[in-house]
Amino acid sequence: MINFQTSPDQYHHWKLTVEGPVANLSMDVQEDETLAEGYKLKLNSYDLGVDIELADTVQRIRFEHPEVKVVVITSLKPRIFCAGANIYMLGTSSHAFKVNFCKFTNETRCAIEDDSHHSGRRYVAALNGTASGGGYELAIACDEIYLVDDGNSAVSLPEVPLLGVLPGTGGLTRLVDKRKIRRDRADVFSTLAEGLKGKRAKEWGLIDDSFPTSKFQESIDARVRAIVEQTVSLRNGSGTAGLNDNEPPQTDSLLYGIKLNPLAVDVKPAGLEYKYVNVVLNREQRYADLTVQGPAANLPTTPDEIQKLGDSYWPLQAYRELDDALLYLRVNEPEIGLVCLRTEGNIDDVLAVDKTLMANKDHWLVREIILYMARVLRRLDLTAKSFFAIVEPGSCFVGNLLELMLASDRSYMLNSTDDSVKIEPVEIAVSELNAGALPMSNGLTRLQSRFLAEPDTLRYIFEVDGSFNTEDAEEIGLVTFAPDDLDWEDEIRVAIEERTSLSPDALTGMEASLRFAGPETMDTKIYGRLTAWQNWIFQRPNAVGEKGALTNYGKPTQAQFDFKRT
Amino acid sequence: MINFQTSPDQYHHWKLTVEGPVANLSMDVQEDETLAEGYKLKLNSYDLGVDIELADTVQRIRFEHPEVKVVVITSLKPRIFCAGANIYMLGTSSHAFKVNFCKFTNETRCAIEDDSHHSGRRYVAALNGTASGGGYELAIACDEIYLVDDGNSAVSLPEVPLLGVLPGTGGLTRLVDKRKIRRDRADVFSTLAEGLKGKRAKEWGLIDDSFPTSKFQESIDARVRAIVEQTVSLRNGSGTAGLNDNEPPQTDSLLYGIKLNPLAVDVKPAGLEYKYVNVVLNREQRYADLTVQGPAANLPTTPDEIQKLGDSYWPLQAYRELDDALLYLRVNEPEIGLVCLRTEGNIDDVLAVDKTLMANKDHWLVREIILYMARVLRRLDLTAKSFFAIVEPGSCFVGNLLELMLASDRSYMLNSTDDSVKIEPVEIAVSELNAGALPMSNGLTRLQSRFLAEPDTLRYIFEVDGSFNTEDAEEIGLVTFAPDDLDWEDEIRVAIEERTSLSPDALTGMEASLRFAGPETMDTKIYGRLTAWQNWIFQRPNAVGEKGALTNYGKPTQAQFDFKRT
Repeated sequence: MINFQTSPDQYHHWKLTVEGPVANLSMDVQEDETLAEGYKLKLNSYDLGVDIELADTVQRIRFEHPEVKVVVITSLKPRIFCAGANIYMLGTSSHAFKVNFCKFTNETRCAIEDDSHHSGRRYVAALNGTASGGGYELAIACDEIYLVDDGNSAVSLPEVPLLGVLPGTGGLTRLVDKRKIRRDRADVFSTLAEGLKGKRAKEWGLIDDSFPTSKFQESIDARVRAIVEQTVSLRNGSGTAGLNDNEPPQTDSLLYGIKLNPLAVDVKPAGLEYKYVNVVLNREQRYADLTVQGPAANLPTTPDEIQKLGDSYWPLQAYRELDDALLYLRVNEPEIGLVCLRTEGNIDDVLAVDKTLMANKDHWLVREIILYMARVLRRLDLTAKSFFAIVEPGSCFVGNLLELMLASDRSYMLNSTDDSVKIEPVEIAVSELNAGALPMSNGLTRLQSRFLAEPDTLRYIFEVDGSFNTEDAEEIGLVTFAPDDLDWEDEIRVAIEERTSLSPDALTGMEASLRFAGPETMDTKIYGRLTAWQNWIFQRPNAVGEKGALTNYGKPTQAQFDFKRT
Repeated sequence: MINFQTSPDQYHHWKLTVEGPVANLSMDVQEDETLAEGYKLKLNSYDLGVDIELADTVQRIRFEHPEVKVVVITSLKPRIFCAGANIYMLGTSSHAFKVNFCKFTNETRCAIEDDSHHSGRRYVAALNGTASGGGYELAIACDEIYLVDDGNSAVSLPEVPLLGVLPGTGGLTRLVDKRKIRRDRADVFSTLAEGLKGKRAKEWGLIDDSFPTSKFQESIDARVRAIVEQTVSLRNGSGTAGLNDNEPPQTDSLLYGIKLNPLAVDVKPAGLEYKYVNVVLNREQRYADLTVQGPAANLPTTPDEIQKLGDSYWPLQAYRELDDALLYLRVNEPEIGLVCLRTEGNIDDVLAVDKTLMANKDHWLVREIILYMARVLRRLDLTAKSFFAIVEPGSCFVGNLLELMLASDRSYMLNSTDDSVKIEPVEIAVSELNAGALPMSNGLTRLQSRFLAEPDTLRYIFEVDGSFNTEDAEEIGLVTFAPDDLDWEDEIRVAIEERTSLSPDALTGMEASLRFAGPETMDTKIYGRLTAWQNWIFQRPNAVGEKGALTNYGKPTQAQFDFKRT
């Protein structure tokens, strides 16, 4: 069982030190501290365990150290920054694990960019040695890249020439889309096993600058000081404040973070129990019921009170639990192909939380909470399992929890004619949070994606004061199906049986194609185009066959290709 | 050897009749007229041979029947429109063939949409029976879809539930992006083997209307008449004229098409020889030299003269030859992994042709020629082979032929210091045609894609009056490398050797990722996201393994899935 929870006192591979506005995040991978058997993490190469720590750190910086304005990512190993994903780990992993590994590392890098873009924190990759493969892909997820000029250190993407696979963590896309490097230069760079060093790497736009060894640290320090002086205070910035908005520098104010404590979870054979999230695994039928419990009534409404509640504030705790549950299901329960999303709680209490969040969205903590909720929902969008939302009496698919329904591949809402049920009506509703604060990877809200053809309907939904009952919700197109009491149980049961009988691969490809209508962004290009190609290559004999390049890497035997182009 | 050339007198599967402004294109697949052994094309199912005829017809309508305003696609078989790609053909084809087959059928459907969008011809799918799988995907590539309401006929995408693969010809993307069908409804539809019939299919937006059997033909006829009355004359429309621009109807004028005669090509073991295109296959080294010969001097400059020349006018003939050569290389020469693109001719003569084309771009034939050149260049962008442009003395990479260089993954331009060479200078230049008339699938020009980071450079390139020599071209970033005489041969030789030594699969995925920086369109989503996922699924054991769904379709044995989600 792979556990995605960790904390700095448990880190093996990263050291985080925070001094005022500067965080130093140093990679020092312990080669024997691996997640699985059969490989050593030499030269700061990484496996999923290393990336789980990185993801945790980035998250903690945002919540525990809001005063940080610059994160410097560097290495404690001499002459090597990071050698990328460990090749022997990849070579011995199943196809499914490779795919899930790449997805998680992609999400971690997108989380870095999310922090930079929305919270204005600037990430500086201080490459004190060679950054190859995933090592350079980590650098290119940062805002600025500086490479030591020691006559030896280089940046490189050697996957294609050495391993016969793609740089799987967004590298190719970020070359041409983020750094806008000319495609012919990107082509040359991506086929050059040894990569490029200082001068040429800078000329081609692969790095921002290089400094000789003797001046490397002082040059990085100077650049960091310059950024700190330029950046605005994060505390009072708006939702998109920061460097990207070119706001004038403001006086720094001392910020106090909150502590992210370990989540309490009871893992049993039959499922997972958190405080607000509950997962029941129906293994025989290959589906899970995931229920999110809504908040209590009368939660605090001021930032100071919320800050005092810290990580036990419902939106933060519930979404942390949801995030953990999704990751658990992805990696530890591959045969669960369908997740039925359910909610329980009081509609008004959820809407009250959303009101508080929107009213205080400019407060640093509230902003971070909203941004985090958005990332968790995007993790759901990108999960290779089917999702059905089940809307029943007692559910509270409203506001932020309505996004669970909108993120689902289908929704079923009970159209009850039973009087006893009418006392507990089945209703859904939007809040201001559904109007833009929780975007998908494609930049649209889930409601915008849903109503691409009906902008009028979209407007109408936000004009309605109050909730939608089942008939209204079906009429307006908010739910897929609205069976009545008589049909309800059978219809859900048959839908589950049918879904879980289908080819899991075809469903993965179908859902990846249907979930993201409308515009594409760098993120969707990474998760759609690049990931799909990488997955394809990850099962090609030229990569993973007996004579494949990945299989034969580091062995005396040579890869032998079937040269037919496909 | 698969031959992509055909003509109506050779068709087995389609009947084209043209009556004034209306073309009737009827599918009547002959089940024994297959491209390969081992399957029968029952129920209007198709193989590549059927689609080659369809592609040819669409092309001919544009050039030979410019008077046509509406193309009605229907079937001559009772109760069945089209059952899609033949499943036994897919089941017995190699992975590479399946991928190339899907790419070509996608290009044919995009060509239909290109005609509709740019030439204003309207395509009406008259579904006189069930349209399933690729049959419905053909319909959804049309502008309007009408289904007979006979109590039985349906539209469906049964690939996921029946075959464990994706609808591979753009169906999923067009559901949510073109017809903007809600993603939950698209999800239900795409997992429903039997599909949906008239009323519900219309309600969900899958078809535009349905008519009872007794009124089907007259309803189609009435709709066709209405379109004819609404549409503008094509002859004098601008490059993007037509329905999409809501221009007022103009008086119809009689148009005379030109004849597309068979291309003369000499196919030898060592390569292909057309009039303007020459392909030398270096099979041992797994690369080809493809040379395009520029036009003669003093070609005609008026539309009437061009129309008299017909298909022997250089731009049309040279690009038809190029198109045929690309298709030949894709399907018949899979081991050729690299194509070195070369040109020969006089720079001024190429630029003179471009000037003529731009000056007359509103004339129907010139417009069709430019649109066709753009499609051929997009076919090149989408070809899964590496392309290097080799710019030498005597080459003419200018104007439209410069696009060959810009479409290449890299370019090499000789930086000659040899006086004898200076007499025949190595130069490149843009023409007005490079500024927008030949867009990539992503909607950008190749120069825009190249200079995403440098809009100033892009502007400068079009301000320069005259050509760029090698030093200027390298300085400004138009070419990748500029070796001098001493290094030239070695550098090209080593580059070819290195390229062809790499994993062909990794190169395919890398090139697909690097060639399309910037925005995405429905086309790039189809060729990137959807195609990559389909290719992935096409090699999964759940589809093509011994117990896979595709393998076991139609057999007494049942598919058995490994239910792990990836």
